[in-house]
Amino acid sequence: MQLEFLGTGAGVPGKFRNVSSLALKLLEERNSVWLFDCGEGTQQQILRTTLKPRKIDKIFISHLHGDHIFGLPGLLSSRSFQGGETPLTIYGPKGIKNFVMTSLHVTETKLSYFIKFEELEKPGEIYDDDKFTVYMAPLDHKIDCFGYRVVEKDHPGELMADKVKAANVPFGPLYGRLKKGETVELPDGRVLDGQDFIGNAQKGRIITVISDTRKTANIAELATNADVLVHESTFGKGEGNLAYNYYHSTNIQAAQVAKKVGVKKLLLTHISARYTSKMAHELEKEAKKVFSDTKVVKDFDEIEVPFDKSRH
Amino acid sequence: MQLEFLGTGAGVPGKFRNVSSLALKLLEERNSVWLFDCGEGTQQQILRTTLKPRKIDKIFISHLHGDHIFGLPGLLSSRSFQGGETPLTIYGPKGIKNFVMTSLHVTETKLSYFIKFEELEKPGEIYDDDKFTVYMAPLDHKIDCFGYRVVEKDHPGELMADKVKAANVPFGPLYGRLKKGETVELPDGRVLDGQDFIGNAQKGRIITVISDTRKTANIAELATNADVLVHESTFGKGEGNLAYNYYHSTNIQAAQVAKKVGVKKLLLTHISARYTSKMAHELEKEAKKVFSDTKVVKDFDEIEVPFDKSRH
Ligand SMILES: [Zn+2]
Ligand SMILES: [Zn+2]
Repeated sequence: MQLEFLGTGAGVPGKFRNVSSLALKLLEERNSVWLFDCGEGTQQQILRTTLKPRKIDKIFISHLHGDHIFGLPGLLSSRSFQGGETPLTIYGPKGIKNFVMTSLHVTETKLSYFIKFEELEKPGEIYDDDKFTVYMAPLDHKIDCFGYRVVEKDHPGELMADKVKAANVPFGPLYGRLKKGETVELPDGRVLDGQDFIGNAQKGRIITVISDTRKTANIAELATNADVLVHESTFGKGEGNLAYNYYHSTNIQAAQVAKKVGVKKLLLTHISARYTSKMAHELEKEAKKVFSDTKVVKDFDEIEVPFDKSRH
Repeated sequence: MQLEFLGTGAGVPGKFRNVSSLALKLLEERNSVWLFDCGEGTQQQILRTTLKPRKIDKIFISHLHGDHIFGLPGLLSSRSFQGGETPLTIYGPKGIKNFVMTSLHVTETKLSYFIKFEELEKPGEIYDDDKFTVYMAPLDHKIDCFGYRVVEKDHPGELMADKVKAANVPFGPLYGRLKKGETVELPDGRVLDGQDFIGNAQKGRIITVISDTRKTANIAELATNADVLVHESTFGKGEGNLAYNYYHSTNIQAAQVAKKVGVKKLLLTHISARYTSKMAHELEKEAKKVFSDTKVVKDFDEIEVPFDKSRH
């Protein structure tokens, strides 16, 4: 599981940062990729990575500002052109369907796959399968804007086949019972406890993506115990009033919430073109004083989301 | 007057060629830039040039396929963000207004300038001022698709002020009469012929832009005596049937029409990603056998459109 940043800029594309898009790579987990936002040029950014548009099966749109959606029609068309046939779901505020369908209709684009639109209204669980649950809660950005929390289900401990073999357990149904953690009696009279043959369970990972927003209570709720919190940082230290007026956040606000709710890693994005790379480093440095595991990301940064070894 | 190619690829963006867009730089002539088509990522390409979005005051859309229009909403938004206040006119087929207005409406974008839409139906003159006339004629691309011909008005010869001064003509109304080419008598009795004091008139330049199309009669009409013909070349020599089936042209068809109607320079664009740069060179070589002044353009190529010294 990796996060690959396709666009880390704010508002308009700059020379060094494209507008918002973030890929959550779930290749080992479900052989697919989830996209968060899709600003103009996202498909061109993807050309510079190993991502395959046909593997994208969910796109979560935070809000309907152009720098978060103008890349959708092109990406959807290219996904079709490149042979994508599996369905794709787009989650987002009311209006996203009208934008996409008008774009496809005007250009007479016929896609080779089906798009399901989920125009979200109520906060809470918006998706659930045997491996992941996704939650949405509204943020505070003047127009409807959503934050997302992706929760991986816990991985049960696996049967340590080598250890079972070494104990000379006869191959067959006893394996299955040990795997379930049962205590079994072997034909030779030995009694084995299944728990001794099962590896550690692994706590599922939590990824929270907070796009454009003022400081607001729902952020803490979405980010609680997140392994990675991706948070916008349009403004810097001392610019809280500006941030408030423009419905955005500062680096410090992001670091404070990360600290407060037990986040493990904070990734700051949606960086204004006002910040040179030196100043962006300063954003990071200031935020680190509040929450040490902070990083200001750049386009094409890829961040591994590791299992937390301390949590079983 | 220069042509700057912002996207020279076909259909979908590739690593080396973005989707269609072409800037006609009229900075000396009218301090503005005209854009032909605006595929996704055009504003990002512009960031890598000296072009200023606020100087773009006309956009000519050939047809409503995504690779020719998906960059419009973003470019229009950024033009506003960067302080563009002067009005802008968009010419194109019926439907372009719906696409742009839906995109701006859904994203609640309020522009700082006025957009005038000219949804074209009848071929012929679509714009005229004291320096330029623009003509449109339909092409053959399955959906409505337009070719454009930009005709610069002839520059009258200018009064050679130095020569008048050297002839000791007293400053005043005699200057104006000489400028009109009249014969005048000076106070000292000399008789001067105004024609001797007027520089060569300069024939206006003609630029023709032919986007996606099959071979069709209107191309010849639009391209007659063009100083520069920009022509799509989605297919290569020997692929005439493919080109016909997909409503496109070959390099050879483009070269043949250039030769037939007295074009001076042929620029081939809309190059498929199937062509490596070596193969694109082959496209050029084959076309040159038919029409020698041919060039396959790349993204960011800038071509000067010179006055034709042989034509007065
Ligand atoms: Zn934004
Ligand atoms: Zn095209």
